[in-house]
Amino acid sequence: MVTQNTVTIPRSVWYGWGDPARAKPLSAAGLEYLRTTLGLQNVEAAHPPVDFEDIALGPSALGEAVLAELSGICGARHVSTERTERILHSGGKSTPDLLRIRGGDALQAPDAVIFPGSAEEVRRVLELCVARRLAVVAFGGGTSVVGGVEPLRGPFSGVVTIDMRRMDRLLHLDALSRTATFEAGIRGPAIEAALEPLGFTLGHFPQSHQEATLGGYVATRSAGQASTGYGRSDNLVKAVHLETPAGPLDVGSTAPGTAAGPKLLDTVVGSEGTLGVITSATMLIQPLPESRSHGAWSFESFAAGAAALRRLRHEGVRGDMPHVCRLSDTDQSAATFKLGGPKTAAMARYLGLRGQRTPALALFVWEGAKGETAARKRRSARILRAAGGIYVGPLPARAWERGRFSGPYLRDELLTRGVLVETLETAATWTRLEATYAAVRGAILEALAEGGGTGYVQTHISHVYPDGASIYFTFLAGLEQDGPAQNARVKKAASEAIVAARATITHHHAVGTDHAPYMEAEIGALGIAVLAGIKETLDPSGIMNPGKLIPTPKNASPTKEKP
Amino acid sequence: MVTQNTVTIPRSVWYGWGDPARAKPLSAAGLEYLRTTLGLQNVEAAHPPVDFEDIALGPSALGEAVLAELSGICGARHVSTERTERILHSGGKSTPDLLRIRGGDALQAPDAVIFPGSAEEVRRVLELCVARRLAVVAFGGGTSVVGGVEPLRGPFSGVVTIDMRRMDRLLHLDALSRTATFEAGIRGPAIEAALEPLGFTLGHFPQSHQEATLGGYVATRSAGQASTGYGRSDNLVKAVHLETPAGPLDVGSTAPGTAAGPKLLDTVVGSEGTLGVITSATMLIQPLPESRSHGAWSFESFAAGAAALRRLRHEGVRGDMPHVCRLSDTDQSAATFKLGGPKTAAMARYLGLRGQRTPALALFVWEGAKGETAARKRRSARILRAAGGIYVGPLPARAWERGRFSGPYLRDELLTRGVLVETLETAATWTRLEATYAAVRGAILEALAEGGGTGYVQTHISHVYPDGASIYFTFLAGLEQDGPAQNARVKKAASEAIVAARATITHHHAVGTDHAPYMEAEIGALGIAVLAGIKETLDPSGIMNPGKLIPTPKNASPTKEKP
Repeated sequence: MVTQNTVTIPRSVWYGWGDPARAKPLSAAGLEYLRTTLGLQNVEAAHPPVDFEDIALGPSALGEAVLAELSGICGARHVSTERTERILHSGGKSTPDLLRIRGGDALQAPDAVIFPGSAEEVRRVLELCVARRLAVVAFGGGTSVVGGVEPLRGPFSGVVTIDMRRMDRLLHLDALSRTATFEAGIRGPAIEAALEPLGFTLGHFPQSHQEATLGGYVATRSAGQASTGYGRSDNLVKAVHLETPAGPLDVGSTAPGTAAGPKLLDTVVGSEGTLGVITSATMLIQPLPESRSHGAWSFESFAAGAAALRRLRHEGVRGDMPHVCRLSDTDQSAATFKLGGPKTAAMARYLGLRGQRTPALALFVWEGAKGETAARKRRSARILRAAGGIYVGPLPARAWERGRFSGPYLRDELLTRGVLVETLETAATWTRLEATYAAVRGAILEALAEGGGTGYVQTHISHVYPDGASIYFTFLAGLEQDGPAQNARVKKAASEAIVAARATITHHHAVGTDHAPYMEAEIGALGIAVLAGIKETLDPSGIMNPGKLIPTPKNASPTKEKP
Repeated sequence: MVTQNTVTIPRSVWYGWGDPARAKPLSAAGLEYLRTTLGLQNVEAAHPPVDFEDIALGPSALGEAVLAELSGICGARHVSTERTERILHSGGKSTPDLLRIRGGDALQAPDAVIFPGSAEEVRRVLELCVARRLAVVAFGGGTSVVGGVEPLRGPFSGVVTIDMRRMDRLLHLDALSRTATFEAGIRGPAIEAALEPLGFTLGHFPQSHQEATLGGYVATRSAGQASTGYGRSDNLVKAVHLETPAGPLDVGSTAPGTAAGPKLLDTVVGSEGTLGVITSATMLIQPLPESRSHGAWSFESFAAGAAALRRLRHEGVRGDMPHVCRLSDTDQSAATFKLGGPKTAAMARYLGLRGQRTPALALFVWEGAKGETAARKRRSARILRAAGGIYVGPLPARAWERGRFSGPYLRDELLTRGVLVETLETAATWTRLEATYAAVRGAILEALAEGGGTGYVQTHISHVYPDGASIYFTFLAGLEQDGPAQNARVKKAASEAIVAARATITHHHAVGTDHAPYMEAEIGALGIAVLAGIKETLDPSGIMNPGKLIPTPKNASPTKEKP
């Protein structure tokens, strides 16, 4: 039996990701690569976060009476107005969030952080917040990279963050039907730890795996690194219990299939805390894979690699598709080859001799029953070869797998070294994939160049569907004087290019505050009205996560209509 | 290349199904079986429908002015108040519908039937109906068996039925991304005829295939006979254009995956005409299968067969699952063996010698690339054998396939012979499957017996999911004096048993009027409020398909809460 990398990490430090002791520092080659690629003279660690003591934080707006009421519901030790908790809940983990908090600004921190122990306690907290006109932010792992857990007050007199960490149990497992019901505050590694002894896995491994919670997965329609095989969280979820200001709501059917009207589950999945607090969810689970087969193929271009993924999906024998399926563009592949040590350097030379001077590298992992994965890999290899792929062995896929959760640590070091790094993502049909890639990449580079420095973008596909694929962009540049403005400028340019390309504004990062201005382009004015109508039913006073998902006049975009 | 049975049949006769010339009359053995099983002395054709001329129909409530306005929008020849059209649109094809119309009652016929030619025309018709306070029923193939197209007036001054038959084009096909956009009024065979020359299939084959339309599939979340392989219509649909009284609405993303908020597409899919009129939809399509492999296995009991289906789904090599997967209970199997001729009689004797005296027969069809289906069948055979299955060859599956669309014809003949026949369906998790089957079957038999006669139920599973399966019941009995009351009595008993078993009130027949009283048990009072809120946004005056889907005080059930 192969087990997943599911080490439980202490909750993230206030200024960045996870446990800094686990960060693997940039190699000398990596630093040199940064200097060369970004044309930076200085990549020393000259931009550390401020001292914790120096973080600016206002007083809590909550009076003694409200705090006593909250304590009456959850117990005094589960209601905090303490400085550390308020700072730790002052935002998510987007690059703008980190730039803000590293600069010492926690002025938008919530007025209190509540740690409820049951759906019943959540319900009573919501009732109280309606009565006292307090905004409510549901907080799982706090890993949002789109402003999803910003403690915005909206028009209310204060804001409380409901941290779900105490609600982390496996409630029920139906081994025969292969479903499991968990409390929403359970984190990825704890999910796997609960399922593994019973022979199951959820199969959901976003990069935020070690921090993010099940409630967060469901609230954001997240996709994981193996979702090409296991399916996105919105495909895995069967039922949700939601506590709303209008009362408890059970959506989703425990039946395997139903035609009993619209699928209300899908109004809650992806609702990002704007309708209520997800307190538990029932998920499809899978048997733990008995074996894994790894393989990497190189293609002469990103387009050739994308065409190979499409052929693999379309021409492959039913069920042969790998669980993990990633294709780097030539820029990302170049970094892999340059930073991977002597073996990958030799690989690059070999590919050059075979005529691939700027290769695009594709990594695959097949998971399944013993003996089965090797056969699936073998059959897939024929298609990949026929599509122009050169097999380069299993090592690149294994190397990726070892480092699969380390990206956010690297970002912390890069920020300290004065390098801006941010990611954004979309998805497009096969027909529009290449044009979307080119347009968004071009927009990012152009916006980066506006600051006068050198920018760098690397891109990959990580989720393959019958009708298309995701596209994930990582951009780097020297931090300008006003880092948040620099980041916003690039993000805006990329988002407008995505809308113009008729791709989706987000494939798996969700909407939060950052993408809300583009929602009307995504779903139309009447679609927004439908969302707002659902919110009106469940959260008539509007206290749930104000400013997220549904554009308000403040963050609405001037350009509305779909082309 | 194997082509599907997709013969286009003239639209159904007013008193029943399809083209009666295509009906295959009951054999002498079939008649004898009916007499024996139901204990009926007389199964002669003594209950024909009334003469068409004798059907009762009221005058149209629409005045000249409104008719002139409708004609101004769609053209005079596409607006009908003619007797035949009104009768043909006076209901769907449920057994109660047929009993009513065969008895000569078309008093609830719509006041006019409109045949629009474009989304724009639909939009203008809706605007007019809002202004004139007319209820609107969207009508595709008119095959609803749950009252979904009943032309109910609700509180309005009249009701018009919008028949979508003129909107039947393939609008766009993206071969690379494997999606196709059709106008909603296209029927199953026309969908296949449009896709086949291009090498594709929709893979959606409900029993109503030859009559039902794409818009109906999407509006009801239908499942087809091959949906275990191809997926339900709600899995196949990517995007929908809906004309609503509040304006046009595009839902669904053309991106392959998205995290941009709740999936609004799923508020429209399954909305059964209560929010607006679906005028076009984009669907995933599949390559036409190059080959098919058939096989049938026999099990000692329904429970043993169900366990085998579950093991096939869970233990099978990824991708080996058959596209068609059906398991009959021992009663249905007995009928198959008794009525199948000498070959099946020999098969039954053989199974008896092998210890299966009351066998449960399972039929499978694997579809796919050449060479692939036989291998998948071979690997599946190992699991089915290990689960106690005895292989009985491909013939039963082939015989089923030949007759796969003939069930509704048989019903017409049975009604004429004074035999009540009706179907209902649910789905349950593997854990609850056996208990649900027993409870619902028992409730049907008990309710049938209340009338004093002998009833007969046969049951099958036709859709297999990771977490459970559908259960489909067909019941027969001699028609009592008040056939509709008899039918309603049985249906009510079955529905209450389904609710009590915590299964779904409908797996693929949808809600319509018949299941509306059970919707609150299915989705809760707050779920109903969410549905009503969505309707309020898109259809504020409530003209769209009144009385369907969302329970009104009139058809609301007294028992509300989920256990």
